[in-house]
Amino acid sequence: MTRARDLGITVGALPPGRLNAITDVEGVRVGHTTIQDPPDLHTGVTAILPTQLSAVRRSLPAALAVGNGYGKLIGATQIDELGEIETPILLTATLSAFRVADALVSYVLSQPGYQQVTSLNPVVGETNDAFLSDIRRRPITEQHVRQALTSATDGLPAEGCVGAGTGTSALGFKGGIGTASRLARVDGRDVSIGALVQSNFSGTLTVSGTPAAAEELLADPGGPVDIPGNSCMIILAVDAPLDARQLGRIARRGLLGLDRVGSDFAGGSGDYALAFTTAEAAVPVRDATLNELFVAAIDSVEEALLNSLLAATTTVGFGGHIRHALPPDRLLARLANRTG
Amino acid sequence: MTRARDLGITVGALPPGRLNAITDVEGVRVGHTTIQDPPDLHTGVTAILPTQLSAVRRSLPAALAVGNGYGKLIGATQIDELGEIETPILLTATLSAFRVADALVSYVLSQPGYQQVTSLNPVVGETNDAFLSDIRRRPITEQHVRQALTSATDGLPAEGCVGAGTGTSALGFKGGIGTASRLARVDGRDVSIGALVQSNFSGTLTVSGTPAAAEELLADPGGPVDIPGNSCMIILAVDAPLDARQLGRIARRGLLGLDRVGSDFAGGSGDYALAFTTAEAAVPVRDATLNELFVAAIDSVEEALLNSLLAATTTVGFGGHIRHALPPDRLLARLANRTG
Amino acid sequence: MTRARDLGITVGALPPGRLNAITDVEGVRVGHTTIQDPPDLHTGVTAILPTQLSAVRRSLPAALAVGNGYGKLIGATQIDELGEIETPILLTATLSAFRVADALVSYVLSQPGYQQVTSLNPVVGETNDAFLSDIRRRPITEQHVRQALTSATDGLPAEGCVGAGTGTSALGFKGGIGTASRLARVDGRDVSIGALVQSNFSGTLTVSGTPAAAEELLADPGGPVDIPGNSCMIILAVDAPLDARQLGRIARRGLLGLDRVGSDFAGGSGDYALAFTTAEAAVPVRDATLNELFVAAIDSVEEALLNSLLAATTTVGFGGHIRHALPPDRLLARLANRTG
Amino acid sequence: MTRARDLGITVGALPPGRLNAITDVEGVRVGHTTIQDPPDLHTGVTAILPTQLSAVRRSLPAALAVGNGYGKLIGATQIDELGEIETPILLTATLSAFRVADALVSYVLSQPGYQQVTSLNPVVGETNDAFLSDIRRRPITEQHVRQALTSATDGLPAEGCVGAGTGTSALGFKGGIGTASRLARVDGRDVSIGALVQSNFSGTLTVSGTPAAAEELLADPGGPVDIPGNSCMIILAVDAPLDARQLGRIARRGLLGLDRVGSDFAGGSGDYALAFTTAEAAVPVRDATLNELFVAAIDSVEEALLNSLLAATTTVGFGGHIRHALPPDRLLARLANRTG
Repeated sequence: MTRARDLGITVGALPPGRLNAITDVEGVRVGHTTIQDPPDLHTGVTAILPTQLSAVRRSLPAALAVGNGYGKLIGATQIDELGEIETPILLTATLSAFRVADALVSYVLSQPGYQQVTSLNPVVGETNDAFLSDIRRRPITEQHVRQALTSATDGLPAEGCVGAGTGTSALGFKGGIGTASRLARVDGRDVSIGALVQSNFSGTLTVSGTPAAAEELLADPGGPVDIPGNSCMIILAVDAPLDARQLGRIARRGLLGLDRVGSDFAGGSGDYALAFTTAEAAVPVRDATLNELFVAAIDSVEEALLNSLLAATTTVGFGGHIRHALPPDRLLARLANRTG
Repeated sequence: MTRARDLGITVGALPPGRLNAITDVEGVRVGHTTIQDPPDLHTGVTAILPTQLSAVRRSLPAALAVGNGYGKLIGATQIDELGEIETPILLTATLSAFRVADALVSYVLSQPGYQQVTSLNPVVGETNDAFLSDIRRRPITEQHVRQALTSATDGLPAEGCVGAGTGTSALGFKGGIGTASRLARVDGRDVSIGALVQSNFSGTLTVSGTPAAAEELLADPGGPVDIPGNSCMIILAVDAPLDARQLGRIARRGLLGLDRVGSDFAGGSGDYALAFTTAEAAVPVRDATLNELFVAAIDSVEEALLNSLLAATTTVGFGGHIRHALPPDRLLARLANRTG
Repeated sequence: MTRARDLGITVGALPPGRLNAITDVEGVRVGHTTIQDPPDLHTGVTAILPTQLSAVRRSLPAALAVGNGYGKLIGATQIDELGEIETPILLTATLSAFRVADALVSYVLSQPGYQQVTSLNPVVGETNDAFLSDIRRRPITEQHVRQALTSATDGLPAEGCVGAGTGTSALGFKGGIGTASRLARVDGRDVSIGALVQSNFSGTLTVSGTPAAAEELLADPGGPVDIPGNSCMIILAVDAPLDARQLGRIARRGLLGLDRVGSDFAGGSGDYALAFTTAEAAVPVRDATLNELFVAAIDSVEEALLNSLLAATTTVGFGGHIRHALPPDRLLARLANRTG
Repeated sequence: MTRARDLGITVGALPPGRLNAITDVEGVRVGHTTIQDPPDLHTGVTAILPTQLSAVRRSLPAALAVGNGYGKLIGATQIDELGEIETPILLTATLSAFRVADALVSYVLSQPGYQQVTSLNPVVGETNDAFLSDIRRRPITEQHVRQALTSATDGLPAEGCVGAGTGTSALGFKGGIGTASRLARVDGRDVSIGALVQSNFSGTLTVSGTPAAAEELLADPGGPVDIPGNSCMIILAVDAPLDARQLGRIARRGLLGLDRVGSDFAGGSGDYALAFTTAEAAVPVRDATLNELFVAAIDSVEEALLNSLLAATTTVGFGGHIRHALPPDRLLARLANRTG
């Protein structure tokens, strides 16, 4: 699995965490269920699971930023009202989002201590993988969801064509799941922030400010760059005592990572960033100290997006559509010759 | 089925439509699937189906107002972004909302002309009927959803303990589905507006400004008035050429109907109003002419809420819980003696 | 000065504070500058001044709820972003709001410790008193603003035709300034909440649920009930450790007080509720414990609105327009005969 | 006055309008009042005046996007509620915004046909020029405002150190006013969109994706890059029949131009984009056709920001602070050697 830093591509000046992944935020786990039945099915489920959630601590502070709301994100209004999430966050394919949410309800209600719970706000994001997968079949079952959740670990998450990123496309290349993290100073303390993305949007790949268009890097892009239903889901985890309003400020910055890598912000894209904190309730940090964390949010999303492309592999999918992987050698050649 | 007007109770000065129902808005149909397996299950699905939606006209202008977002309404962010709904609106029980949305996707994608559709934003509202129904069982199937949609008619909808209102409670009485409508003048034209509600919230019943508490009207209320997860879903249909912003103004007024009947706006309630128009795209009416329609929105919701209680019948449910019907004679006695 | 309780009119079951005024929240002061030059000028400025604000503690947590945004409230977007207010809150007449904000900047920048301050977000609300006052003259000066601020005290604020309420109308009667307060239990502690309103809106006066229309209570209402530019400003002060999101929930409830007294929520009304807390930053109280405070917010606004009418006196104004005071005796007679 | 295109720097593929300015949108005029009393005062007022506004056509559809609401933008809530602006848009310095709004009221109320108007929502944006100007003096008078409005023309607006940009700083260089425009196809018709910006924010200048830091291009930057109260105001004019919701989508894209030139989105910045249309009310264009206009919005803001820097001149200001102009030759050298 190639990552941006393996190629010498760095984003910003802040240091990444140990794994350079969302799992650098202590207690956060990631799991994937990948569904592949070539050529028709390339889809799956990805779970971001903060282990701080339990029957004892039923929610974590959280906020949602909507970049472009052409999407079906489940759980939005309660996150806004109460400033919290009550469940792990699942990502999947657009038309499967609802059965995935239903399965998430099944999973959480079956956990110890949830026997009497009669209300739950499952959080599920999605993007549209119809270009490579027969999305109308909605192949995801409760078992797939359960597997993503129970297999979640705190190691480096698999990236690229896994889980909810199995069938996605971004910037004319094969997209997928990517992650990255940063360490920042906030109000005198060390803070970890991690991003995980499901990349699936149109535009012109831009790396370190240099455009590297699919039309240029690929002999044959294999399909239109701009596909309907493109989107990007961004999850940000942090371990600082922030309240929901502050997490909203973080989440809105996270969306800017999309611009850094060349999104064209098409109207049909569902671009969302959800930020949560694992920290215990406390007096929130002062807003005036958040600037470094804002930069960390943007940078970690930008790098996670690059990682999502670099880890993905060429995929032949539904209807014979093809999405080529971003070729690292051609990318490096492009970057070495920026005036080209 | 007793309705408020049958008892001489009227709301406001504007005239109702022919049926005094949301189905007075031409093209709007309502259907219910009622699931009753006493004493444990009292739940169901209600469909509000604007027949103007089709493969040719894929969406209708719409807006959502969130009174208190402690709810799981599905479809919110795309309604905000695009100012439209793409599907009929379904109401159901909280924990079943996700499988109902999944079934709604199945239904719409199977309609003529939707064979190539790969993205859809199903709209599902919910309230929590756990006091009377074993909500954790989530008994609603795709077949139940399909039945609510295919049985929808443009006649007077059944009210009370039907569909999504089968197991709900409001103001200490048995709640349920209710509907009402008004005729109003807007910018020199006649406009119909109709409301349909799923009543399920706490507070003190107030009729024509007179409190009529459950504790007073019932010999034995049978349970606490204030139950967790209480909520109210309000659907407003109108036939005037309004844009999404204007429909948002209508929807926010609709929420005030809750105050008129005595809601206490508890923090655990998911109170939402969704307004849509069946009118073809046109130059929108002028905002300065909307005042009568604003009044019509509030009045029709207030009367729909009263109808939801008056039509409901005493129900013994899950765990032996009981919700008594609002007794019309005692209510009338209370109203006749307002100073009591 | 007649107040609702003097007439035996009570609102809700929660007890009021010592003064039944926003000044029951410790540290909160109120001052008025009343400008009267009959018949043409009936206007002024009202200041709500939390003495906790200082060069040391530069802001207090706050949130704004917009009921109907047809108004010129100054300071809105920064309140939303940072969840705080940096200045006392001033109320005045619509067209004077900007010079009042400018004077508020002058005042705060001249305070001890503000010598180096180069950015400030003054908060000014307004309603339109053009029916009784020559609003286009904008007679309010920096001196008037300074006087309202420096004369502010923690006693029972003057109500009715004072300050920003000098020229306002509500529900067909003379409106003005009103205030009330409540004590509530929140998360195991005693909390004070106080409301101050500037009433200036259309509808039908409703007291304890009984309509008491101006057309009925007055021999000659003296003018149309529904005047353009009607509005209502609501200020809520509380002393519990709430964050901005929670204060937003309080503020949204405050707007419901308008419904309780019979507002028709006309489209031309600028209805806003601003809630702030004087409490020091702390771990916020739990949302699940806020219900009593929600009720307290609605009730205190309802009673403040009634007080604003009861304290106001008949005023002959600009263009010979007249607004009659709400006659307490006729109101009581109406309430005693509710079935009328 | 050097502009980006004079240096061979182009942004995006869409063609600019005739002047490459906001005044390419027919009927839109721009005027400046520049206040310079070196070294202490460097400030002013800029007016964007759509001549379509008149006593006959009292408002234009408009929407506001808040990137980071640490600003004092006046008029926000009514723009949201009614989806329109009623006045020209003025830009100025933070602490002067309120007296500028007051003067704008004076100006509009004195126009023919406004003799009876008693309510008006002036729109004023601001950024903080305290680094170079003695902002606390608030030197702007009603006469200055009137002059900016009456001198407005439909020619190429002056850029750089003029009007509201006289004392601003951006990305470590002297900032100011900039403008640009694009032609786009929307729903089968030709549309003009123009941007005008008041640049005043921190970050690292980025041109065509290449960082060109002030620390690198200037022998002595003369002061900290990151100054408190930095901000950016963005005004977008378009001539297509868009409703307020669609204009909101345009405005949100406009904010992305900030990212393209290297803003760090610091928490103390007030970043706003206001979009309005001069088109007559009509059936709105279809959202699915807006993508090219979205790109045009981002590109025109990016180029306007570059123009704002390139036209600005080195300024020695209050307290001896200095902001150097962006040196075109050194910028071109940097761009020619992108790998540096």
